[in-house]
Amino acid sequence: MVDFTPPLRDIKFNLRHIADLDSLIELPGFEHVDADTIDGALDEAGRFMAEVIAPTNRAGDEIGCTMVDGQVITPDAFKGAWRKYVDAGWSAVAGPPDYGGHGFPETVGFAISEMFVAANLAFSLNPMLTGSAITVIRDHADEAVRETYLENLVTAEWTGTMLLTESEAGSDVGALRAKAIPADDGTYLVSGSKIFITWGDHDLSDNIVHLVLARLPDAPPGTRGISLFVVPKMLVTADGTIGSSNRVETVSIEHKLGIHGSPTAVLSFDKSVGYLVGEPNQGMRYMFAMMNQARREVGLEGLGISERAYQQAVSYAQERTQGRAIGTAKTDVSPIIEHPDVRRMLMTMKAYNEACRGLLYDTAAAGERAHRASDEGDRKAAAARVALLTPVAKAWCTDVGVTMTSIAVQVHGCMGYVEESGAPQHYRDARITPIYEGTNGIQAIDLVMRKLPMADGSVVRSFLDEMAELDGPLANAGEPRLDSIREPLAAAVAPLREATEWLLACEDPNDRLAGATPYLDMFGTVAGGAYLARLAIAAAGEDRDEWMEAKIDTAVFYAHQILPRAAGWLSSITAGAGELFAVPVEGLEPSR
Amino acid sequence: MVDFTPPLRDIKFNLRHIADLDSLIELPGFEHVDADTIDGALDEAGRFMAEVIAPTNRAGDEIGCTMVDGQVITPDAFKGAWRKYVDAGWSAVAGPPDYGGHGFPETVGFAISEMFVAANLAFSLNPMLTGSAITVIRDHADEAVRETYLENLVTAEWTGTMLLTESEAGSDVGALRAKAIPADDGTYLVSGSKIFITWGDHDLSDNIVHLVLARLPDAPPGTRGISLFVVPKMLVTADGTIGSSNRVETVSIEHKLGIHGSPTAVLSFDKSVGYLVGEPNQGMRYMFAMMNQARREVGLEGLGISERAYQQAVSYAQERTQGRAIGTAKTDVSPIIEHPDVRRMLMTMKAYNEACRGLLYDTAAAGERAHRASDEGDRKAAAARVALLTPVAKAWCTDVGVTMTSIAVQVHGCMGYVEESGAPQHYRDARITPIYEGTNGIQAIDLVMRKLPMADGSVVRSFLDEMAELDGPLANAGEPRLDSIREPLAAAVAPLREATEWLLACEDPNDRLAGATPYLDMFGTVAGGAYLARLAIAAAGEDRDEWMEAKIDTAVFYAHQILPRAAGWLSSITAGAGELFAVPVEGLEPSR
Repeated sequence: MVDFTPPLRDIKFNLRHIADLDSLIELPGFEHVDADTIDGALDEAGRFMAEVIAPTNRAGDEIGCTMVDGQVITPDAFKGAWRKYVDAGWSAVAGPPDYGGHGFPETVGFAISEMFVAANLAFSLNPMLTGSAITVIRDHADEAVRETYLENLVTAEWTGTMLLTESEAGSDVGALRAKAIPADDGTYLVSGSKIFITWGDHDLSDNIVHLVLARLPDAPPGTRGISLFVVPKMLVTADGTIGSSNRVETVSIEHKLGIHGSPTAVLSFDKSVGYLVGEPNQGMRYMFAMMNQARREVGLEGLGISERAYQQAVSYAQERTQGRAIGTAKTDVSPIIEHPDVRRMLMTMKAYNEACRGLLYDTAAAGERAHRASDEGDRKAAAARVALLTPVAKAWCTDVGVTMTSIAVQVHGCMGYVEESGAPQHYRDARITPIYEGTNGIQAIDLVMRKLPMADGSVVRSFLDEMAELDGPLANAGEPRLDSIREPLAAAVAPLREATEWLLACEDPNDRLAGATPYLDMFGTVAGGAYLARLAIAAAGEDRDEWMEAKIDTAVFYAHQILPRAAGWLSSITAGAGELFAVPVEGLEPSR
Repeated sequence: MVDFTPPLRDIKFNLRHIADLDSLIELPGFEHVDADTIDGALDEAGRFMAEVIAPTNRAGDEIGCTMVDGQVITPDAFKGAWRKYVDAGWSAVAGPPDYGGHGFPETVGFAISEMFVAANLAFSLNPMLTGSAITVIRDHADEAVRETYLENLVTAEWTGTMLLTESEAGSDVGALRAKAIPADDGTYLVSGSKIFITWGDHDLSDNIVHLVLARLPDAPPGTRGISLFVVPKMLVTADGTIGSSNRVETVSIEHKLGIHGSPTAVLSFDKSVGYLVGEPNQGMRYMFAMMNQARREVGLEGLGISERAYQQAVSYAQERTQGRAIGTAKTDVSPIIEHPDVRRMLMTMKAYNEACRGLLYDTAAAGERAHRASDEGDRKAAAARVALLTPVAKAWCTDVGVTMTSIAVQVHGCMGYVEESGAPQHYRDARITPIYEGTNGIQAIDLVMRKLPMADGSVVRSFLDEMAELDGPLANAGEPRLDSIREPLAAAVAPLREATEWLLACEDPNDRLAGATPYLDMFGTVAGGAYLARLAIAAAGEDRDEWMEAKIDTAVFYAHQILPRAAGWLSSITAGAGELFAVPVEGLEPSR
């Protein structure tokens, strides 16, 4: 197994050329931030993730979390690393300055998250969910709740969770049944059972702040009758210290395929004290704001774990000798990295990872501009962009993560099937990401049913135009390799445009639903090519060292060898639902 | 978790229409076999696999194999099931009649294997490898070895293994170092260490017959100096009973991602008595004959496990309710099988599984005809066909197996990530199949470098012609749905032909190697569509009940929605090696 190298140069290149960090830090609120400080912070964060967090990854998998007397116990290695994380203040980098945060751009926090995810996915979920809880409380909770909880969450002394799912309410959140009864003192008594709660219990901090969806007694049915509550594991006294238990019981934790270091809990509430967040029955709206941030971060998980698996595969392919590459002397054995088929696997991983990184940093920066930009028009444009790209960032990057970690297993040959090699862990860990935070099917439906119709289709059309308009810069860069990207990019954007217009014009919702997943696959594949092209154009304009040349070659590889596959999805997008339902349910069952 | 239903109707339909079993059992040696007996045997085997073997699958995964005092211990559930398997004579169905076998066609044994694999992949590897050992010993060992070992292997009282891999000799078998020194009595003393030995040790039988590749003292280097030996775990006395230990030590077993019920051993030989099989230095040739059979069976593993995962997903999708399908009353909740996106996942699995089954049964039947057909021309044609199709059957069906078991996880949502659901086991188990018995990269290289050039390309061209000639039957079936397959099939065969001709004409071996994997992907995808078309044509000619209609609809779905993706591989096949090596090794490494 290899160490983790934080891909700092890639991250910084994306922050500069995709996220346009230089203009981001010119926005109000970032007066205390400058590019050099960010650079230094990223370097230091990378060192921390590589040296302190990454070494805990195998222990998290092998030892995992256990339950003892109703309390979740994390691996010992996590405890020391978490303390260092909290003490170093990494959680607070992008946190609100009024509550103990350093007020750096969220996009910088996103970059730090990428490295945490790659270092230890299971572990990283704890601060990631805490970050979501911070956002919701900051934006929607009243002052008393903010004062009581926010600073301890920002500094990661306490952690946060999101509690949506119940046994009969998964993708269909509106079916949830947890109840909240108003008490006389303005609080609520929350009762019910929630499942699949990531880091729902643990022993790393003194308190856990649960954000719980529940129904008030007179709430309308479905998603319009859901309210959001802060329900701490431990009650907090008036002076801010930990009080008595709040009757939040950890019923069990799941035995999962991967992310063994992340305890997935069943939690039960029995008249636990809750504090209403915002208005009654508006819980879904608040939760969606948080979910969208969380969805981008799950997309980032797909990239992070794929990057880690890629690095390990590159290292293994250099060490492992087997056979003799064409053109070497008869007595030699070659490192397998010299075999074309292995090289294809590595180039495929490299290209997809970099494509995902472009998409993700664009989405994250748009998410930040949507509430930070000075100009209202800029805010609206950014909000539209992030709304469009979030489901793609979540689903495409996590599907890619699963595929790339599988390729990384393959590079290892038989060793890839042996747990000690580390390759299987990445493959197992990655598999959760297309599932949680809204399955990738739900993302595809969101993209097609809600996002494409935004502003009568003009948001998606603008994005398509933007990809097509890369033709000019590609032509004008004075680099024949970039010129060679023009035709395949145009040939990929055209069928994506056709698919988009077909979906926008389609009146039967079942037909649109039927095309959702192949459309998202196609969208991601084409957008990925466009991001690689943008990165290559940027590289062509810089001093061309080997790393910059590789950016161009990677974009060329993807444009010539991956992008042409995009057109193949068109027919399944536009086929309608009929062929999916032609075989009746009984016909799907096996027949003796 | 659901029970396993043996897909007997599918299997029999493929035996009839793809394998042409009716003509196969007319061949010499099958005088005692008739179609009704085969049907009955398959029914009974299906019942056995579903009722006796399938229930052991979870125990095999959860308990797995352990090592105690140098001896591998299998899960208790395996012991009783194995005894029933041996006693019922299932291992002997296709075994040679002179040695305790029933002399049924191998293709029928293949069908039984499909059901064993689906019932419990890890368990099925033991008889599968034993079958390979039987083939080698029957075809190449001298009479003394045959008399001593064959009957006990055929009846599965003893089991067999294949020992190729050493730590520095994986894909590159020629690098192996195990030694065999001639003794005075005509035997050999074999010493060395072998790794990744499937079912290399266990407690299910009294003896294990190892087929070991090793070098004689004066052997030439590389693959031309490898000889094959039978090395039993326990020596066998002159009267055929078990004698003393043969100094075969089980050093350790691997901790693997999946197939926990299959012990993967490191074995060490220290002057263990071995019996030379056939001629000195011909071991690779004998092993290759066995490997080709094993490769088809690994392809079958991809299908079997995918079928099991599919059945479970169909069952779950009917039980699990979530959301409301379009067109249902506002108060309803729908089983998720009514949602188009879920239906797409199920149809995708169904179509790929059936495509794989067609390819596999064609390959198996060709393999059998290659040595059974009465006419030498028929034997040669079948040998060419099986040579061409074996790498595709192995690699494409196992890649499909990985993808389909991943889709099955996805159908389960969050439950798919919980081990108790059973879905993760299929996903983990399937992942070995693209690796062992020659990685899928090795298969692709075999296809492109050795199989395409057979008979100056005429073997592959005939196969392409055969696919193109389905156009007539599709047009003449009098079924508009079949007619609708013609255009997409032609549009997929054309770029496959272009890719084939490019590879045949290409003079740079690195360029051909670079195109190998995408070529195999494309070949499998197009061939899969052709097999589905053949099955649909057959169904159209039968009494059309719902099951037959589903065959047509499945072929239509694949032709319209999957086949159009095949053309997208063309550019990566014909791109050459240059773009794969454009980024130097250092450029693949992460950069801080």
